[in-house]
Amino acid sequence: MMKRIGILTGGGDAPGLNAVIRAAVKTAVLEHDCEVLGIRDGFDGFIDEQGIVPLGMQAVRGLLPRGGTILGTANRGNPFARLVKRDGKQETVDVSDEIVKGIEKLKMDALLVVGGDGTLHIAHHLYEKGVPIIGVPKTIDNDICGTEVTFGFDTALNIAMDAIDRLHTTAEAHHRAMVLELMGRNAGFIALHAGMAGGTDVILIPEIPFKFESVVAKVQERVELGYKFSILAVSEGAKPLGGEQIYSREGNEVYVPRLGGIGHAVGEYIQSQGFETRVTVLGHIQRGGTPTAFDRILASRYGAAAVRLAAKGIFDRMVRLQSGKVTDISLEEATAYTKQVQLDDDLIISARGMGISFGDE
Amino acid sequence: MMKRIGILTGGGDAPGLNAVIRAAVKTAVLEHDCEVLGIRDGFDGFIDEQGIVPLGMQAVRGLLPRGGTILGTANRGNPFARLVKRDGKQETVDVSDEIVKGIEKLKMDALLVVGGDGTLHIAHHLYEKGVPIIGVPKTIDNDICGTEVTFGFDTALNIAMDAIDRLHTTAEAHHRAMVLELMGRNAGFIALHAGMAGGTDVILIPEIPFKFESVVAKVQERVELGYKFSILAVSEGAKPLGGEQIYSREGNEVYVPRLGGIGHAVGEYIQSQGFETRVTVLGHIQRGGTPTAFDRILASRYGAAAVRLAAKGIFDRMVRLQSGKVTDISLEEATAYTKQVQLDDDLIISARGMGISFGDE
Amino acid sequence: MMKRIGILTGGGDAPGLNAVIRAAVKTAVLEHDCEVLGIRDGFDGFIDEQGIVPLGMQAVRGLLPRGGTILGTANRGNPFARLVKRDGKQETVDVSDEIVKGIEKLKMDALLVVGGDGTLHIAHHLYEKGVPIIGVPKTIDNDICGTEVTFGFDTALNIAMDAIDRLHTTAEAHHRAMVLELMGRNAGFIALHAGMAGGTDVILIPEIPFKFESVVAKVQERVELGYKFSILAVSEGAKPLGGEQIYSREGNEVYVPRLGGIGHAVGEYIQSQGFETRVTVLGHIQRGGTPTAFDRILASRYGAAAVRLAAKGIFDRMVRLQSGKVTDISLEEATAYTKQVQLDDDLIISARGMGISFGDE
Amino acid sequence: MMKRIGILTGGGDAPGLNAVIRAAVKTAVLEHDCEVLGIRDGFDGFIDEQGIVPLGMQAVRGLLPRGGTILGTANRGNPFARLVKRDGKQETVDVSDEIVKGIEKLKMDALLVVGGDGTLHIAHHLYEKGVPIIGVPKTIDNDICGTEVTFGFDTALNIAMDAIDRLHTTAEAHHRAMVLELMGRNAGFIALHAGMAGGTDVILIPEIPFKFESVVAKVQERVELGYKFSILAVSEGAKPLGGEQIYSREGNEVYVPRLGGIGHAVGEYIQSQGFETRVTVLGHIQRGGTPTAFDRILASRYGAAAVRLAAKGIFDRMVRLQSGKVTDISLEEATAYTKQVQLDDDLIISARGMGISFGDE
Repeated sequence: MMKRIGILTGGGDAPGLNAVIRAAVKTAVLEHDCEVLGIRDGFDGFIDEQGIVPLGMQAVRGLLPRGGTILGTANRGNPFARLVKRDGKQETVDVSDEIVKGIEKLKMDALLVVGGDGTLHIAHHLYEKGVPIIGVPKTIDNDICGTEVTFGFDTALNIAMDAIDRLHTTAEAHHRAMVLELMGRNAGFIALHAGMAGGTDVILIPEIPFKFESVVAKVQERVELGYKFSILAVSEGAKPLGGEQIYSREGNEVYVPRLGGIGHAVGEYIQSQGFETRVTVLGHIQRGGTPTAFDRILASRYGAAAVRLAAKGIFDRMVRLQSGKVTDISLEEATAYTKQVQLDDDLIISARGMGISFGDE
Repeated sequence: MMKRIGILTGGGDAPGLNAVIRAAVKTAVLEHDCEVLGIRDGFDGFIDEQGIVPLGMQAVRGLLPRGGTILGTANRGNPFARLVKRDGKQETVDVSDEIVKGIEKLKMDALLVVGGDGTLHIAHHLYEKGVPIIGVPKTIDNDICGTEVTFGFDTALNIAMDAIDRLHTTAEAHHRAMVLELMGRNAGFIALHAGMAGGTDVILIPEIPFKFESVVAKVQERVELGYKFSILAVSEGAKPLGGEQIYSREGNEVYVPRLGGIGHAVGEYIQSQGFETRVTVLGHIQRGGTPTAFDRILASRYGAAAVRLAAKGIFDRMVRLQSGKVTDISLEEATAYTKQVQLDDDLIISARGMGISFGDE
Repeated sequence: MMKRIGILTGGGDAPGLNAVIRAAVKTAVLEHDCEVLGIRDGFDGFIDEQGIVPLGMQAVRGLLPRGGTILGTANRGNPFARLVKRDGKQETVDVSDEIVKGIEKLKMDALLVVGGDGTLHIAHHLYEKGVPIIGVPKTIDNDICGTEVTFGFDTALNIAMDAIDRLHTTAEAHHRAMVLELMGRNAGFIALHAGMAGGTDVILIPEIPFKFESVVAKVQERVELGYKFSILAVSEGAKPLGGEQIYSREGNEVYVPRLGGIGHAVGEYIQSQGFETRVTVLGHIQRGGTPTAFDRILASRYGAAAVRLAAKGIFDRMVRLQSGKVTDISLEEATAYTKQVQLDDDLIISARGMGISFGDE
Repeated sequence: MMKRIGILTGGGDAPGLNAVIRAAVKTAVLEHDCEVLGIRDGFDGFIDEQGIVPLGMQAVRGLLPRGGTILGTANRGNPFARLVKRDGKQETVDVSDEIVKGIEKLKMDALLVVGGDGTLHIAHHLYEKGVPIIGVPKTIDNDICGTEVTFGFDTALNIAMDAIDRLHTTAEAHHRAMVLELMGRNAGFIALHAGMAGGTDVILIPEIPFKFESVVAKVQERVELGYKFSILAVSEGAKPLGGEQIYSREGNEVYVPRLGGIGHAVGEYIQSQGFETRVTVLGHIQRGGTPTAFDRILASRYGAAAVRLAAKGIFDRMVRLQSGKVTDISLEEATAYTKQVQLDDDLIISARGMGISFGDE
């Protein structure tokens, strides 16, 4: 019988992490009479002093509407290659054995790991070293292949849509092009969905390389049709056709210096073609705040389902959403590749049919 | 080739109706070079003067964030049994032939009907009389069997969750039981999901007949555990075990007088057992206002998909969501029965595991 | 020098109470190196065991966005006439001496009392018995005469406006009259301001007795002008001209049974005149949830200003807002009468000029 | 008697402009039986063809919740120095006589000009040339001296607070410093109020020159106290002590290149001192979207009051808020200087007392 489980949150935060923790604690305590330990700051908590906290019913009161994670999350947390400073230099050391021993010492019957691709990979490797692991998927970008969708995405989407709604009224008043850069390094789900929900005129995503000329042609077309403004949703990972080269300014070629700069590059180009343009990078605001109903519910279902898996002694699995039901999948399969927008999805087809440009015409 | 289509919205309004209209018009005009006529106030527009309005690109500007429907929706609109007053008395007349003739006269190549069970049934019967019909599902209660989910539900859910969040802080301050009656006559999806999202202590839905004693036992249990308040989410269609009889007050049996009164009945009973209680009936606020991202996107996909079906000449079908994709299903199959919450759903199991009472213990 | 102060919250809860507590604690600790004790459940905390809790910096972390009050608030809390059960009967006893002794024993240099009219009256009487009291005004209805405005009102207003926005879209779709009953027993500020902010067609407030016929005349006028719906904002304390008598139904006079029922009475009357009508009572949802920016700021200023008053040894005063500045006023003057809407206010004049009916034409 | 008035909106847009237009039209039509003409894109509408549109009751339906301005607003609109291109070069020409003639030709009895400092100055000069002008103040930054506050500010504030709430949860999860750059070139009202409402640890405003070392000292202090994150609200016009010089990097002095970059400069400096930092520039999102209740009401009162002034034949005045009442003031006095945060304001004193740093310690 399951007596004690641990839970940690790794990688970037996402609205719903606290709801997972709350559901896991409630289910463990009430359904399985099982104790829960929280591990602070990802896997770091196993190493750091004061890194382990008991999580009882009282600890999870009022957590459902709160964004972030009460357990914290840290980036140097890969126990197989942990960042440390030695003699003033950054090095990596493998502390995975310490983790395994820590878990044994704490007598955990299971460890729930909530995280993205990277964290879930680590989780699988820890399983191979004997740790009874269950994974819970977490990614705002929605790019984990093992689940239809995960929590955080819906909240990010609504925040982005809200920003587009606001930009609409100001764009309309000022006859401007407004560029909104959104999250999404490898997958364009947020920009695609937010662009549809907010009614943008252009959507640029990593999956569809774009031409600067096509983007401007759309802005131009709208002006000719009497619409005095345009709104553009741009994934931070959107890429111009032909690679890194961006456009030429005063005879020189200008390159986008780094990830995150594409919104400004697009804006600058449109402006250079004679259209007044403003750029906003929504950034970390997309990650925070109270989760939407969808995210709270899904996160709760995941937390509860993970505990039930643990109670059954089924490990090396990830809970996931499949046709409206919470099921599970092997950790390895779940993180086999990065999910991306499918170009024959009806969403893409509908967007094109409604006149939205993806910059590839 | 498709030259002209019509669109109407029937039944109760839902956030997303305008998004369907906008997507249908944009897709028809831009992708198919096809004209769109709007029919006002459900099927009534075919009968009333000024009931038909051309819907061009200009007519659908700015519609995406707006709740309600610019076409209106009316309740006496069943053309097979239309309510009329004759000699001061209410009568019904069959005006379906007029509708059929009207559609022919207007030279519509297709008629998109956006509505719930009732409206979609009518749509199917009109198809049998020769009208080239395509259906788009609309139900806030989420009770149409032919689709996994439809627009309006997510918005209603978030409004309900928001209300529960607000009740939480006031319940906590005052040590009260707070009852929130939500929509859902035949299906408890809104109360179940909102209750999970808001973290209520009790959820009462039509699918699970409840005992008043169990409800109070939960409130009592919480007081004993040191929680000084309880929140209860109650579907308007929730029913006490054993039928209509509610509870006895001063020796008399008290009956719930009508649909919509169950929230007050539950509140009154809890109060009678010595717990200070307040009741709120959220009502029509759940139906209105700007749609969430999910609802705007799904409604847009439906509108675009319905036009594409029409362009292919495929009729008597309803667009629907299936495993994340928009597909279609026959109108008859789509409305064969009222969808309800499945009692073995992981959501129900998770809710019970987390200590939520359904009043049936 | 000030070493220790107490703080309690009394009466109905209001968004911003936690912000007052947080600001008072931060100011006391950081600016005055002074300890703070929280008293639970209004004055009850002085009587009950475990009623006193130390409030340090850690206790107020994350409080700013949270509605409600971490200290709780109770209704039997008048120490001069405390409700007790003796031999099965309700009685009142004067426990004010116990309170005074409690405060002395706890060595409080000051007691901050956050509350409405009633609570502030009690505060003044305790001052007369030697307690070093400072008052902080709290009223969602905005009816305390000693301050221009207090926290909670702005939040309630925005919640009510949001509800009206939602009702608008559904009213428009369905051609209905929608009645929304709002808070305000003695003063109509919420209905007046929410009605202006939401663009309602009728506003009924306690300060302007209304005629049912005038209300219906407005609904009728709108139908004739081609607007197919009307929205009505009604204070719970709105009163028909001529007192309690409401209207006659089938030859019988119908009376409004109790406070809180006026919304339904108005709705029923309009319906009886042939206009489809729906009624929503917003209720406790207006009191809860995260405060608006205005309320968080004002509450914080009040909390900080109250501690500064205490540090100066100035008692029997209430902090208040006056022309944009936080000043103070004697408790007696501050609660001398119930503030009401002035009928010559430019808001009333502007509302009438814009065609809004107050039901008194 | 007043037969016809004009209205235009100038300068940057602000939530509430549409509410002013709506109130002016309703008051003119219903109270004064007077026609209203809208002038498009600021003063440009007098010059451009199709620049004048009649505004009847139908034109202002549904405007109250909508951000932006249906009339548009343009930046080259100073008629005394209008930007034109001649022979490929930018020039300015004085077209004020054309405006005056246009107004005479249109037989306007009054012209309502809604705008900020610049636009109101122009309005005053047009009055001197004989145009019957009334001004309505509009500034999100809240920096017009002639009024206590104007519409748009409260909305911007709540958007900024919402962003801070979201940053809080993500900062807490990640142990980061989060810098949020907000609007406010010459006045720090938005950053000051949003910082108070959101509970930031540092507030940097134009009125208080800051030291980079002090800012980092605050971040350091919090880490030592066990708070693992800090939030900073920074006005776009915040300036380091000693002028433009910012900080030295690798032996070189680094200057803030332009207005708008201060947020990134502050973030880069904190990061350089060893604290993980992220910067968000909220930008145009602060200007758009549906106005708050306060802004809708104030804008409506302004629009109605301006029409009443016109009806009385009182010109060269600006409507304004004064101790809760809408009164008026001469245009010249109203725009005499730029209002700034007063350093002895109780808000500043309270903020300091609660431990918020202004970077000047």
